[in-house]
Formats: sequence, C-alpha cells, structure tokens
Amino acid sequence: MSLSSGDDEPLLHGGDLGAARRLFPGAVEPFIDLSTGINPNPYPVRRFSAAQLARLPDPESLSQLVRAAARAYGATSAEHVVPAPGTQILLPLVAGLAPPGRAAVLAPGYPEHARAATLAGHTVRAIHRLEECGDATLVMVGNPNNPDGKLFARSDLLALANDLRRRNGVLVVDEAFMDVGPRDMSLAADVACGNVVVLRSFGKFFGLAGLRLGFALTAPPLAARLSASLGPWAVSGPALAVGVAALTDGDWIEGTRRGLAAAATRLDAILNGAGLDVVGGTTLFRLTRTDAASALFRHLGRAGILTRAFTDQATWLRFGLPASEPDWRRLQIAMAEFRGSR
Amino acid sequence: MSLSSGDDEPLLHGGDLGAARRLFPGAVEPFIDLSTGINPNPYPVRRFSAAQLARLPDPESLSQLVRAAARAYGATSAEHVVPAPGTQILLPLVAGLAPPGRAAVLAPGYPEHARAATLAGHTVRAIHRLEECGDATLVMVGNPNNPDGKLFARSDLLALANDLRRRNGVLVVDEAFMDVGPRDMSLAADVACGNVVVLRSFGKFFGLAGLRLGFALTAPPLAARLSASLGPWAVSGPALAVGVAALTDGDWIEGTRRGLAAAATRLDAILNGAGLDVVGGTTLFRLTRTDAASALFRHLGRAGILTRAFTDQATWLRFGLPASEPDWRRLQIAMAEFRGSR
Repeated sequence: MSLSSGDDEPLLHGGDLGAARRLFPGAVEPFIDLSTGINPNPYPVRRFSAAQLARLPDPESLSQLVRAAARAYGATSAEHVVPAPGTQILLPLVAGLAPPGRAAVLAPGYPEHARAATLAGHTVRAIHRLEECGDATLVMVGNPNNPDGKLFARSDLLALANDLRRRNGVLVVDEAFMDVGPRDMSLAADVACGNVVVLRSFGKFFGLAGLRLGFALTAPPLAARLSASLGPWAVSGPALAVGVAALTDGDWIEGTRRGLAAAATRLDAILNGAGLDVVGGTTLFRLTRTDAASALFRHLGRAGILTRAFTDQATWLRFGLPASEPDWRRLQIAMAEFRGSR
Repeated sequence: MSLSSGDDEPLLHGGDLGAARRLFPGAVEPFIDLSTGINPNPYPVRRFSAAQLARLPDPESLSQLVRAAARAYGATSAEHVVPAPGTQILLPLVAGLAPPGRAAVLAPGYPEHARAATLAGHTVRAIHRLEECGDATLVMVGNPNNPDGKLFARSDLLALANDLRRRNGVLVVDEAFMDVGPRDMSLAADVACGNVVVLRSFGKFFGLAGLRLGFALTAPPLAARLSASLGPWAVSGPALAVGVAALTDGDWIEGTRRGLAAAATRLDAILNGAGLDVVGGTTLFRLTRTDAASALFRHLGRAGILTRAFTDQATWLRFGLPASEPDWRRLQIAMAEFRGSR
C-alpha cells in the first residue's frame, strides 16, 4: 500500500493531523485542524442499524439516495446522478470519459485533478483561464475553485463545453464547494448537454468526510459508464442512510449555509485583525496571502493549529473554520500573538 | 444512475430483498435472505466516534488496517496490501493491470469477473479448467470458487502465473470465501512473484457487507497502480475502525470459523433430508443440484425464503446460512413441505 502522505510530503493534503504532530512535536494539544474545507459541525449521526452494516447496500436505498441527490443538487433527473464512495475515487473515472489526449487543468487548483488526468492517460497542461484550453479534449476546473474560491460563469463554462463537444471532449466541473457557493452558478441542471460532468462532494458541507460519499452528475450515457466501473455496491449502507437523511433535511441545509457564512465573516475579522489579506475562498475556507505565510504556518503549528500551506504558492495560507468557541478563542490568541511578535 | 437490478433481471445478484418481494408479493414476512454467502451473524458493531465519521480517513489508521490485513490474510508484508471500499470496485482495476488482450474467466463463476474484464478492454472467454487458458493474458478464478466451492491447488495456480508472466499476463485469484476455505491453499503469501493479485473480501466472513471493505494483495508495483487509482481516502472511517478491530480479533475469527462449519453441516442435513444433493460450496453457502430447482425456488420464495437461482444453470440452487433458530425452523418446515408436495 502506498499513496499515504509520506514523511517527505507531510502536507500533500489537508486533514493529516498525524503528519502535523510529526512536524510540530511539542505543539499544544488537542490539535485544531483548520487545514481542510470541511464543515467542522457535522450533520448529526453516530449509530446505524444492524441491517445497514450487515446487508449488501440495496437497490431501493440507492434509488432513494439518487433521487434525493438529484433534488438537492438541482439535477433534472435521477438518471443524471451517479453516487460513489467520495468524489476522489471518481476523478480518474471521469477523466477517463474523454479519449486520452491533452488535458487542461486549472491552476492553482485541486492537485488531484492533474493526477487523475495523468492516470487516465492524458498529457496534462496547467491553465489559468478558460481561454487557454486550446485543443484540449479534457478540461477540469473547480467552481468555486479550491483554494482561491474563483467562480466561473455558467455561460462561459457552457460555451467551453460546446467547444469541447465538437472534438469529442469532456468538461469536468468540480463543484465540491458549491453547497456554499452561489447555487445559481451550478451546472447541475445543464449536464444533459452530453459532455459535462459535475462533481458534488457530500462530506465537506455535511461535515462527514469519513463517511465517503460523493456524486457525479452527467448525461445518462456517461453516467452508465461511470456506474459500470463502480459496480452495484459502491456506496456503503451507512452512507446511503445518512445521505438520504441529510440531503432531504432542508432546514439543516439552510441553517448550516447561514451558520457557515457567519463563521466565515468572523474568521475574516480575525485574519484581517492580524494584518492578513483574505484574497479568496468560500464560506468553508478562506485563502490569505502574506509574505509571512511560512512563519505563520509554523507559529500556528506550534500552537497546535494546523492550516493549509501550499508548496507551489509560498505566500498563501488557507484557513478552515474552527469547530467550537474554545477553538475560536485559541485561534484568536495565536493570531494576536503572531501579530505582536512581528 | 443505472446498474441496479432491473425488473427484468430481479436476481442478477443475491441479497436483493426488494426484487424478491416484487417476485413473491404474498410471501411470508419477514423475508429470510439465504441468497448470499454472507455470514448472517456479523462482527458486533453499531456505533462510531464522531471523528471516524467527520474527519478524512487518516494515513495512520490506514496503515494500521493494512498491517492487520497483512497478518490476518498471511501476506508477507503491508506493502502487498491495497485496501478498498469492497472488492467489487477493485475488479475492473485489477483486470486493467493486464494489457488489454484475451481474458480467460472461470465458468461457472462470479459473473462480475467477466464484466470487469470486458470493462478493462479484454476479450473474454469462459474456461472450465485452468488448462484451457490458452494464450490469455488475464485469468480470473475464484478459489474457493463461487458458487461451486471448487478449489485449485496452489502449485497449479503458481504454474499458471509463471506461464502468464512470460507473456506479461496477470492472474487474479478471488479468495472472497477463503476465510472459511482451507487457508493453506491461499496465494496470499505468493503474490511477491509479481503478476498475481489475490482479492480478499471483508464483508462476507465478518457479515458486514454494508460497510464496504475489501483488499487486493499483490506485488508492490501493481499495488502502487491500484492505490493510485483508488486515491488516498478510498476506505471510510467506519470501515477503517471496524476492519482493524475485526481482523485482529483472533478469538472471534476462530469461533466464527467453527460456528459456520457447524451451521453448514446442519444446513446439509436439512437439504439432504429434503432429497437434495449438495454438490459443492463453502461453509458460507451450499450449492444443490436438483431438477426441481425452479419449483423449489418459487416454493421457498412464497414461504418468504430467498435462495439464489442461476439463469444459466437451471438445476442449481444455492443456500446461505439462516441467522437464527426461528429462521432455521422456517427453512426446515418449508423444505419438509416441499418434499411432502412432490
């Protein structure tokens, strides 16, 4: 088994507190993890029925989940929805929907997009604007993009998809953070056009990244290809049960959107108060730019607060949301100390 | 979303009680599901910690799981172990480890093997004996095989692997039922030879098919390719936690092996007593052959007992193990009634 974060790359992804503890051995505990864009206050669940764990996930529950996801995400029908054990495992599969060729992948962006495109046999080129796609037959962009929160207009993405269609190409729009984005910018209702795949993450907004649940929204022919690769029991019994409950819980969803927006505003005040520029993000994470990024990352690490640094963007630091008042307080104090020390 | 059991193929796989209820609308309830080879008395678990559900599955827990699996299955090191959300999702990936060419797939066998080989771009041929592999570059066999329980000698499989290696071919041995097989016939310790993949299912023996956990055991270069496709968070937090606990619980494992063997003997007595020939199986399922298979399937269905029929083998009926004394009793009565009605 490989592909865990090795010691040489302790911060390849967010969320790895083991790596953080090796990096900051004397840090204050418990560690506060602000290195991801995962909602720290999850949809409530702990216990599962015996049948959910024991039996093969059944087609009826899967249909329920797919219908709930179609409604929640605004897909035009359940035929457009492919559930999976997380969107991560979908990335090489959706990249494989385009015949191997040139792939254009947004940078900065989610690094797994480029890895997946390479795995699927594409030659990968980083692009910074949609206009740079050239003759690519696969384009992968985040919308909102991670880590900068950049948004792309529906009309621009649909024009790009139209262009790609002429050369049998596929557009993948990773809407992992669209639950807190301007939802009218989602392409979920547009996937019937044939060559667009929208990825929706369940674990981030609902704060249940350990459950492993995610969706591809796409036209039925592509959906059938993805479903065939995943097989009949890709989603676990617990994920089926929680997925249906959470995606149909409109009150929790609306309340959480408001709560996250308020938390993001509060976080911005702390970051601004410490002299940082917030240059982007969503209400699940905030991106700051500062020449002191590396020093601040280490200062916070020693204080037991893990943030997300970027090897290729030395001046960036990304902050997720604290889970509780004590965590907010620790962050506030650590940021004030840092400002005081400069 | 497609690939659920449609109404036209209600019994493509075992375990679909929804399809059974549509097929036998007036059946006695609750339905008893004997259509799978899943242990009906699961490893005990219901509740998970908040962190197991909320956080991204962490590399340390994954390492623990991989080490536990290596020990439990007899792999020579953790480097040979690739964990996945069930072996089902691994099938197209392991089939893709051989360059697209001719695949030989054991028949009768698990139908998903042929489907996975086709998905991976191979031309699939059914074989009945290892000697019929010809110039195949991918061979997929069950050991013990499902549904007939057929066993292949390690020496024969290793000779085949040796032969395949000369033409850059891969041997996939699906040991989904080897937990209850003669464990000295497992190839788990032989995968270092380079072109053998052993698949181990967690959910069947531990009775937790809804959790989605399974493993590929193979040489590190192939393991790295599989891990790259699965990505860093393929296995859920609940599956990581339960997997480590169950795979290291030697007492439960040994007790369960004995209990399943006793249950299989008891099931054979009921089947024999009703005039059926038990022609194969493992201690998790028994295969019977009878000209009355179709009539018996329907008789049991109406009595609220789902067994596994085979569209391509009209005289076969496969029985899993009842979960409880009331279920045993209902099976016994239904079988006696059937015998009396002939």
